[in-house]
Amino acid sequence: MIIVMQPGATAMQIEDVLARLAELDLSGQITQGEERAIIGVLGSPIVPGFGAAMEALPGVEKTLRVSKPYKLASREFHPTPTIVHVRDVAIGGDEVVVIGGPCSVESAEQLRRTAHGVRDAGARLLRGGAYKPRTSPYAFRGMGERGLELLAQVGQETGLGIVTEVMTPADVALVGQYTDVFQIGARNMQNYLLLEEVGRSQTPVLLKRGLSATIEEWLLAAEYIMAQGNPQVMLCERGIRTFETATRNTFDLNAVAYAKRVSHLPVLADPSHGTGKWQLVTPLSLAAIACGADGLIVEAHPDPDRALSDGAQSLTLENFARLMVQAVGVAQAVGRTMQTSAAMSASPVV
Amino acid sequence: MIIVMQPGATAMQIEDVLARLAELDLSGQITQGEERAIIGVLGSPIVPGFGAAMEALPGVEKTLRVSKPYKLASREFHPTPTIVHVRDVAIGGDEVVVIGGPCSVESAEQLRRTAHGVRDAGARLLRGGAYKPRTSPYAFRGMGERGLELLAQVGQETGLGIVTEVMTPADVALVGQYTDVFQIGARNMQNYLLLEEVGRSQTPVLLKRGLSATIEEWLLAAEYIMAQGNPQVMLCERGIRTFETATRNTFDLNAVAYAKRVSHLPVLADPSHGTGKWQLVTPLSLAAIACGADGLIVEAHPDPDRALSDGAQSLTLENFARLMVQAVGVAQAVGRTMQTSAAMSASPVV
Amino acid sequence: MIIVMQPGATAMQIEDVLARLAELDLSGQITQGEERAIIGVLGSPIVPGFGAAMEALPGVEKTLRVSKPYKLASREFHPTPTIVHVRDVAIGGDEVVVIGGPCSVESAEQLRRTAHGVRDAGARLLRGGAYKPRTSPYAFRGMGERGLELLAQVGQETGLGIVTEVMTPADVALVGQYTDVFQIGARNMQNYLLLEEVGRSQTPVLLKRGLSATIEEWLLAAEYIMAQGNPQVMLCERGIRTFETATRNTFDLNAVAYAKRVSHLPVLADPSHGTGKWQLVTPLSLAAIACGADGLIVEAHPDPDRALSDGAQSLTLENFARLMVQAVGVAQAVGRTMQTSAAMSASPVV
Amino acid sequence: MIIVMQPGATAMQIEDVLARLAELDLSGQITQGEERAIIGVLGSPIVPGFGAAMEALPGVEKTLRVSKPYKLASREFHPTPTIVHVRDVAIGGDEVVVIGGPCSVESAEQLRRTAHGVRDAGARLLRGGAYKPRTSPYAFRGMGERGLELLAQVGQETGLGIVTEVMTPADVALVGQYTDVFQIGARNMQNYLLLEEVGRSQTPVLLKRGLSATIEEWLLAAEYIMAQGNPQVMLCERGIRTFETATRNTFDLNAVAYAKRVSHLPVLADPSHGTGKWQLVTPLSLAAIACGADGLIVEAHPDPDRALSDGAQSLTLENFARLMVQAVGVAQAVGRTMQTSAAMSASPVV
Repeated sequence: MIIVMQPGATAMQIEDVLARLAELDLSGQITQGEERAIIGVLGSPIVPGFGAAMEALPGVEKTLRVSKPYKLASREFHPTPTIVHVRDVAIGGDEVVVIGGPCSVESAEQLRRTAHGVRDAGARLLRGGAYKPRTSPYAFRGMGERGLELLAQVGQETGLGIVTEVMTPADVALVGQYTDVFQIGARNMQNYLLLEEVGRSQTPVLLKRGLSATIEEWLLAAEYIMAQGNPQVMLCERGIRTFETATRNTFDLNAVAYAKRVSHLPVLADPSHGTGKWQLVTPLSLAAIACGADGLIVEAHPDPDRALSDGAQSLTLENFARLMVQAVGVAQAVGRTMQTSAAMSASPVV
Repeated sequence: MIIVMQPGATAMQIEDVLARLAELDLSGQITQGEERAIIGVLGSPIVPGFGAAMEALPGVEKTLRVSKPYKLASREFHPTPTIVHVRDVAIGGDEVVVIGGPCSVESAEQLRRTAHGVRDAGARLLRGGAYKPRTSPYAFRGMGERGLELLAQVGQETGLGIVTEVMTPADVALVGQYTDVFQIGARNMQNYLLLEEVGRSQTPVLLKRGLSATIEEWLLAAEYIMAQGNPQVMLCERGIRTFETATRNTFDLNAVAYAKRVSHLPVLADPSHGTGKWQLVTPLSLAAIACGADGLIVEAHPDPDRALSDGAQSLTLENFARLMVQAVGVAQAVGRTMQTSAAMSASPVV
Repeated sequence: MIIVMQPGATAMQIEDVLARLAELDLSGQITQGEERAIIGVLGSPIVPGFGAAMEALPGVEKTLRVSKPYKLASREFHPTPTIVHVRDVAIGGDEVVVIGGPCSVESAEQLRRTAHGVRDAGARLLRGGAYKPRTSPYAFRGMGERGLELLAQVGQETGLGIVTEVMTPADVALVGQYTDVFQIGARNMQNYLLLEEVGRSQTPVLLKRGLSATIEEWLLAAEYIMAQGNPQVMLCERGIRTFETATRNTFDLNAVAYAKRVSHLPVLADPSHGTGKWQLVTPLSLAAIACGADGLIVEAHPDPDRALSDGAQSLTLENFARLMVQAVGVAQAVGRTMQTSAAMSASPVV
Repeated sequence: MIIVMQPGATAMQIEDVLARLAELDLSGQITQGEERAIIGVLGSPIVPGFGAAMEALPGVEKTLRVSKPYKLASREFHPTPTIVHVRDVAIGGDEVVVIGGPCSVESAEQLRRTAHGVRDAGARLLRGGAYKPRTSPYAFRGMGERGLELLAQVGQETGLGIVTEVMTPADVALVGQYTDVFQIGARNMQNYLLLEEVGRSQTPVLLKRGLSATIEEWLLAAEYIMAQGNPQVMLCERGIRTFETATRNTFDLNAVAYAKRVSHLPVLADPSHGTGKWQLVTPLSLAAIACGADGLIVEAHPDPDRALSDGAQSLTLENFARLMVQAVGVAQAVGRTMQTSAAMSASPVV
C-alpha cells in the first residue's frame, strides 16, 4: 500500500504516520516528491480497515494499493528515478553510461590494453570476469582471485570503476574487496541466497535478467536485494532464450522500455550477450539507447579471435571506439547525453 | 551458385555465360556492381564439375557456393540493396519511410481523419485493414471490399499510397485493383499459395514475419514470392511469440539488423504489434530506426479507446506526430534521413 | 450462454425455449444428456436481463455463462464427447485409432506397400500428402492431383479411409472428391478462409495445432470450422516450437490431456512431427495413448532413408508393426481398446 | 575419447592402457560390459596421434571420439544403465519408483499424514521442501532446519528415504545430515558451485532440468556433479517454459525418451511442476511411465486447498493412491514393474 500525503503535510504529520505503522509492525519508506511526500508501506498482512484508518490521519490525502507483486522496485511505490552512484559516475539520470571490457580477465596485458582502449573511447566503468559460469565443466572458468587483483589494479591505473560477477554467497565478501559493482549473472538471477547476500552489502548491484525470466520475475529478483537494505540496484537486459537460432539470444528491448515505465531503477542493456554476434552489437547498442536504456555493457577485446570466452560477440577496440561516437549522436537525439571520459575527445577515431 | 565476373569483363562475355547456363537448363540473374558483375545461378541440380567449367569461361573470375538455403533473397546472390518503389516513395535507400494508419478501416470518417493526421505528421503511405484475420470467429473481421474502396478514395485525396492485407489467393486480383502494396500478415507467412499468387503480380509486397518463424524461414517465404518473378519484397519484423506476457509479442530487433546483413531486401519494423502497448510504440520505433530499419509501419487512430481492433497498441494522432519529430533526429544520428511529406513542416507539433 | 433444462423437461418446453431464442435472433444447440437436456445459445449480443428471462420459462433449471471464448468446441457447451465417423471407424469413443502412412505420396508402389503394411499392422486410416507445404520453394511439393488419385485407389484396395491435406480454399472441392478426412496442417491453422471452406463441407476435418498456437487459439480455429456447420472436427497435437533443438518440436502432451478436459472433440497426437526423430516415435506414441489421446497419426515408409520428405521421423513398416503391438497394451492399461484391422491378428510381428 | 577393448582383453592389458593414460596426465574410467570392457578417457588436451597410439596397444580394438560435449553422463562413454541406490530402493533398473510428498514441509502433522498416505499407496521415497526458492521475497520460504528434522523423523517412522532440496553450497553439509537424496531445483541447475559441492559428497542427487535448459545443458550440469566424483545422479524433467499459458509449464516428455537414449543416468519426471494443474497430473504421470521414465516425483497434500505452496498442482492422498494403481498397469504394459511398498497391497483403494 502507498500513503499519499497532502501537498502541505508537515514533517510531524509524516512522523505520526510512521509511528502508527510501527504500532502495527509495519514500516514506511518515504519518497519526497516535488509537491508531496509518498510513504510506501512494507510488511504484511495488512489488516482490513487499515486503509481507512490511515486516511483518517492528519495530512494524509489518500491511500493506494500497489498493483504489482514487487514493491520497493516499483515506480508506483517510488515515483522518482533512482540514481546509482559508482565512484564519480551517476547511472539512471540524464546521462548514458557505457561499461566496457573483456568477457574474462585473461592476463594483465590483455586487461590493461582493453581497459585503456575502452576508457579512451569513452567508457566510464570496466567490466571483466574473474569467476565465469560456464555451461561445460571443461571450459575456461576464469582466473579467480588473481583476476580480481588485476581488475582492481587496472581500475586504479585507469580511474575506471570495476564491475565483476559474484557467483555464490560465500564469495561476496571477497569479491566486495575488489569491485565497485557486483554483477549477478543471468544464470543466478534466481539464486535467492546470493541476491540476499549482496542485498546486505552497500555495494551497487548490476542484476542481469535471467535467460527465461519474465520482466516481473526480474523485478522480484531486484526486490530480494532491496528488501535486505541495498537500494542500489541496476537492471540489465541481456537477451532471452527463444526459438530463434540465428542469434545467440533474442535481445528484448521491449523489456528495457517497459522496465523503465514500471520501475524507478536504472535499466542497462548488454548487446553483446543480447545478440551473440559482434556484427550486430553496434546497431543494437544504438537501438538500446534510442529506447531509453540508461547505459550499456559491451564486451571488447584486443584480439577477439583469440579470446578465451565470448570472442564471437566481442568488439575490437577500434569498433568499440566507433560505436561510442555513434552512441553520442543517438543519445542526443533522444534528449540524453553520453558520459564520456576526458580521454575521449583527445582520442583519434576513424 | 554465384559467378563472379572479372572487373573488365565484357557484355559479350556475360552473354556467353548466360548462354552456357541456358544449355544446362539453368538461368542467371545479373547484378551489376560498381566494379564487376555478379551472376546468380538459378535452377538445379547443378552437375559435378559445373563450377570448374564456368571458371574456365573467358571473363569469369571465380564461382562461389551460396551458403544460405534462400538465393534470390540473399545478399550473397545480390550484393546491392534493393529499392522498392511505391508511387513516388523509395524504400530501402538512405531515407526512412513511415507507413501510418488504423488497424482496420472502420468508416470513411475514421479513415479520412487518420489519413490526414498521419500524412500531415510525415507518413508517406497509408495502412488499413479491409480483411482482418481474427483469432475468434466472433470478432470484427473488416469491411471487405467497401473498406478497399474507402482506402483507394482516401489515398487519392491525400496522395498517400495504400498498404493493405490480402488473405487468400482468390482475393489477390480484387485487392490488387485498390492497393499499392500487398501486405502478407504474420499468420499467412507460410501460406505458400498466397505467396506465389502475389509473386505473380508486379505489385510490391510487405511480408510480415510469422509469429514463430525463424529469420531463415522468413527469407524463404520471400524467396517463394521472388521465385515467381516479383522482386519487390519488403520484409517486416512485427514481434515473435515468447514466454513473456507483459508485452503482446517480443519485438526482435536483432532480426532487423541481421536481415539487413544477410539480405538485400528492405527491412521494416512494426512496433505496434511488436509491443502491443501504445506506451512502448515510440521508444521501440526509435530503436528500430537506430538499428537500421528502412521504415516503420505504425498504427494510429483518432480515438484508440473506441477502435474496433488493436486499440491498446494504437497511437493517437498527436502521439503519432510527436513520434515523427523524434524519429527525424534518430534517423539523422545514424546517417539516414526521414522522408516526410511536404505537409509536415507546416504542421504544428507539440 | 448455456441453458440447463430440468431433469423432467418436456420436448415442448425445449421447443418453447428455442422459439424464444429465435425471436431474439439467437439460435440454440441441444445436447441431450442422460439426465437432462442442455441448450447452448449461439449469437450475440445477448441483451441484459436475458438470463433471468430464460430462467423464468417452464422447464428451465438455470442458465450459465460460458467461460471460454470458444463455444461450439467447449465441453461446457456440449458435455458429452463427440464421436467422429470416418467410413466404419469411430474416433473419440472408447477405442484408440491409428492413422498410418507416408509423409508424401511418392509413387503407386511406395503408397501401396506402405498402405498394406500399416493396415496389416492394425492402422484403420491411411495418411499421405499430395500437396505439401514446404519451407523452401525448391523442395519437393507433392504429386498434386495424381497423388490424390493414388490415395483414392489404394484406399479402395485396402479398405482404408484416406486422410490428406488441403492447403487452400480453392482446392477444397477437388480434394474433397478423393479424401475421407481433410487435414489442415499446422501452418494453416489460422488460415481462416480455409477453415471456413472445410467448415462448409460435411467431410470430417483433422485440425493440427499451429507451431506456436496456444490451446485456446487451437480451439478457436476449431470454432471457425464448426461455426460454418461442420461439427466433425478432430484436434491433433503435433509439437510446438520452443528453444529445444535436440528434437524437431516439443511434443506437448499436456495439451492432449487439457484439450480433452475443456473440449468434447476427439484429440489425436502426431508423434512423428512431435519428435522429428523416428527413435522417439514409439515411446511418445505410447505416452500419448497413456494420457488420453483418442488416436495417433504416424508416418511410416518402406525405406525411410530414401523418403522425399520427413525420412528422419518415419518408421519402417516393421517398427510400425512393433509400435502397434505395444500400443494395444498401453491402451488396455488405461481402459481403452485399440481398433485394429482384422488383418492384424493374422500378421506375424516380432 | 573412448577406448574399446577386444572381447578377450586381459586385466593386465587394461592396466597397461590406464598406465599409458596416466603418463599423459589423463585418466580412464572402465565400464565392464558383457562382452568387452570400454575405457572412457578423461582430461585434455588430447594430443594428435593419441588415438593411433592407443590402438597400437595390445588388447585394444579401436578408439572412438565422443560426439557429445558431456562425457561421464553420456551413454557412448558408459553404455550400461546406471542404477542409483537410495536405502533399499534401486532407481534406473526395471522397476519404476515413485517419490511422493508435499511441496513444502508445513508441520509435523501435515508431513506425517502425507508420508503415511503416499507410503501406503506405494511410494518408496518421501519428498518435501524445507528450503523453498520462491519468486517473491514475501512468499513462504520453508521451515528451514526444523523442516529437515521433521523429514528425518518421519522418514524414520515410515521407512521412506528422504528427498529434499539444497539451495546453496554452504547448506550442503547440513542438509546432507538429514537427507538421502539432494534435490537440485530447476532454478539452480546452472548454479555450478552448488553442483560441485554435491558432487563432492557421496549422496545421490536428483537434478531437475532448468526452466529453459536444453537437454544438452542439463546433461552438462550432471557432468559438473559427476566430474567431482559423485556418479549417483538422477535426471528429472519438470517442464520447460514456453509461450503456452494454459498450463504452468510445458512437460517435455520428448526429453525423457531422448535423455534415456543419450545418457545412462536414470531419468525421472515431475508431472506436478510439468503441468501445474492437479487434474493433469495423473494422465501425464502415466504418459511419463509409458515413454520410459524410471520414476516419478509427485506432489501430494492432505488438503491441497490449504497448502502453503503449490496447492493447485498437488494431488489429494486419495487421488495419489488412484494414480499408483493406474501406474502399475502402464508400467506392466511397457515391460516394467512398479516398486511398491509392502503396505500397498494391504491398502484399500477406490
